[in-house]
Amino acid sequence: MTITTSPIRNGIDTAQMYGTLDAVKANPGLAPFEFRVRNQWIAGTHSRSTIHDFWGAGAEDASRETAFEVDASEPPVLLGHNEAPNPAEFLLHALAGCLTLTIVNVAAARKVTLTEVSSTLTGVLDARGALGLDDDYRNGFTQIRVTYKVKGEAPPEKLQEIVDRAQARSVVYDMVTNGVPVELQAEVG
Amino acid sequence: MTITTSPIRNGIDTAQMYGTLDAVKANPGLAPFEFRVRNQWIAGTHSRSTIHDFWGAGAEDASRETAFEVDASEPPVLLGHNEAPNPAEFLLHALAGCLTLTIVNVAAARKVTLTEVSSTLTGVLDARGALGLDDDYRNGFTQIRVTYKVKGEAPPEKLQEIVDRAQARSVVYDMVTNGVPVELQAEVG
Repeated sequence: MTITTSPIRNGIDTAQMYGTLDAVKANPGLAPFEFRVRNQWIAGTHSRSTIHDFWGAGAEDASRETAFEVDASEPPVLLGHNEAPNPAEFLLHALAGCLTLTIVNVAAARKVTLTEVSSTLTGVLDARGALGLDDDYRNGFTQIRVTYKVKGEAPPEKLQEIVDRAQARSVVYDMVTNGVPVELQAEVG
Repeated sequence: MTITTSPIRNGIDTAQMYGTLDAVKANPGLAPFEFRVRNQWIAGTHSRSTIHDFWGAGAEDASRETAFEVDASEPPVLLGHNEAPNPAEFLLHALAGCLTLTIVNVAAARKVTLTEVSSTLTGVLDARGALGLDDDYRNGFTQIRVTYKVKGEAPPEKLQEIVDRAQARSVVYDMVTNGVPVELQAEVG
């Protein structure tokens, strides 16, 4: 009898995952990534980002035949027309998407099959900051709360370890909690 | 001859804008906002966020008849299938969308008509961080570069002032540069 272990777990190709780890270990020149977003104002609070090319794994990526287009705007109470989610909601989406895929990757690496990963994120702010009415309030969220539900074929302690490891390794969690230096330049007129 | 000043500038209803400012000044109870995102894992690196309700301006918002659904995933080199932009790209989109609408709002408040607001954002990271191969590298971007092109019916100095003010008041710029405390809890098993 032959026991075959499929390299696909949780939809992740674990053979590719281990191959990537070995390749980056052997050649750190594969590690730098540059992601790019181009944004165009449409009208009012409404803008559109075009997301297509990036540099990574030692080459300009060519896997995306067409660009993604993603809009952002505001609801009427914030002077928009609900053309799309607002930027603060997109930040929560970025955080959710990153934590979720990191949980799934870590579980796949640890040979744990997951059956559910769902989450609710809330961010609270006081608009007196962004409106410039009171400097005692920051512009952004004072706090983000993230609640995950994770189910899978492993004891709760193991699932909690996976969540903890994902929290320690998530790209966007790091950025949102620790901040990133931003260099902003404008060509005006 | 009657000169009529339209309250709409850059697609922003400036009468509503000033009304909002006055209302929040008079009643700070209108200032708290809570935004919410619910995310569901689909398969592999692919997840979907549902963005609908929020609290703001003293009430639960009811302006969105249907929820927005936004996916996130990864390209093949990062173990996905390009089902959607990746979370780090969504963070750049959130930053772009917020800076752009803040520029447009500030210009409207200052009676400047804009004709173009476009931007390019790049974020660089070294994957040895997120892969857990070398703790000398953080998980997220080491730096984000943002380049704006802003054109409008005002001298360059005035347009630059608008960009500077938007940078100082943007909700997502604040969060990305300064970070936000995140409380993460998981229900496992």
